[in-house]
Amino acid sequence: MKIYTEHITISTRGNNDIINLTEKINAVVNNSKIKDGILTIFAIGSTIGITTIEFEPGLKKDLPEILDKLVPINKRYHHDNTWGDGNGYAHIRSSLIGTSLSVPIDDGNAGFGTWQQPVLIDFDNRPRNRKIICKIIGE
Amino acid sequence: MKIYTEHITISTRGNNDIINLTEKINAVVNNSKIKDGILTIFAIGSTIGITTIEFEPGLKKDLPEILDKLVPINKRYHHDNTWGDGNGYAHIRSSLIGTSLSVPIDDGNAGFGTWQQPVLIDFDNRPRNRKIICKIIGE
Amino acid sequence: MKIYTEHITISTRGNNDIINLTEKINAVVNNSKIKDGILTIFAIGSTIGITTIEFEPGLKKDLPEILDKLVPINKRYHHDNTWGDGNGYAHIRSSLIGTSLSVPIDDGNAGFGTWQQPVLIDFDNRPRNRKIICKIIGE
Repeated sequence: MKIYTEHITISTRGNNDIINLTEKINAVVNNSKIKDGILTIFAIGSTIGITTIEFEPGLKKDLPEILDKLVPINKRYHHDNTWGDGNGYAHIRSSLIGTSLSVPIDDGNAGFGTWQQPVLIDFDNRPRNRKIICKIIGE
Repeated sequence: MKIYTEHITISTRGNNDIINLTEKINAVVNNSKIKDGILTIFAIGSTIGITTIEFEPGLKKDLPEILDKLVPINKRYHHDNTWGDGNGYAHIRSSLIGTSLSVPIDDGNAGFGTWQQPVLIDFDNRPRNRKIICKIIGE
Repeated sequence: MKIYTEHITISTRGNNDIINLTEKINAVVNNSKIKDGILTIFAIGSTIGITTIEFEPGLKKDLPEILDKLVPINKRYHHDNTWGDGNGYAHIRSSLIGTSLSVPIDDGNAGFGTWQQPVLIDFDNRPRNRKIICKIIGE
């Protein structure tokens, strides 16, 4: 049994930019040489999310549109009284979507379906450089 | 330390069918003979969710009703412009609820509470056969 | 490779009380003496959530306000027909936010960002004593 770690840096445009992590995650799994185990993908930050989606142009518009309805950008948030940085919505979206995703590794592959891509969503209101920790335990 | 894996197939009726996974998960934990570890339950697909709920008839109606308000079925989604399969809502719900759940194994039992059942929710608009990966690392 | 477990009990005020788990989680990681691994934090119960947030006074108001809009407290829930305990909203919020969080341990520290605190949210409509399982696998 061994542990394998990679830290990935990703440049985003912010503003609900949805970034397909599939290639980077597959590279991590290949680099690890672990064939059987559990991978935890964790995004560092409080205005970011990690989830899965079918990564196609329609849903890349649909998800932000639904989030705009549920957690509006232009609402007045108490968070702005603390920092005045206008991204209260981004923090709340991060708490709802979550920043962690665990997926089994089977036969050397992450268990995502053909139409199920791991994605990072940067909710913040400006471009950011984001860090993701990938940790695999297995053999 | 060892790794134990089971792939489970579950037939659903789609349309927000909520399926109690408790018996199947307990069987996996028993079969594994692992008494102490971490179990990751992962659903393969982009129109499906894994979460926990008190599995009783009232909440089985309440959760879909709230989801209908948050992510309406009958809204026009950009996703339909890509595939025309009318299940854009199902994809968005999957991204919000998530498809992965990790739970500790203690003394040979998964850590769920008495009123806290692991469930699969099939958001798609038709019956489906779904695959779930259960992977335990422990001893 | 080893496994380390702690069960934590936390007294809450209920009513969307948001409790910063950072100090308790850091203590668990220190106690474990594990420098490299994966920590799973799991809350036992069906009216509770585990997520991350920047733990500051503004967001502690914003998150419950948004949840009040998405999953209203005063709506009539079918759940009340089963138990009559008036906390249907709390169950639905738990299913949406989730009760599990996995985070890598690197160099002896949990991977949370500076402004990203692990929190427990007690959605129930009364004070509760809550149990959380922390399980680390690593070395």
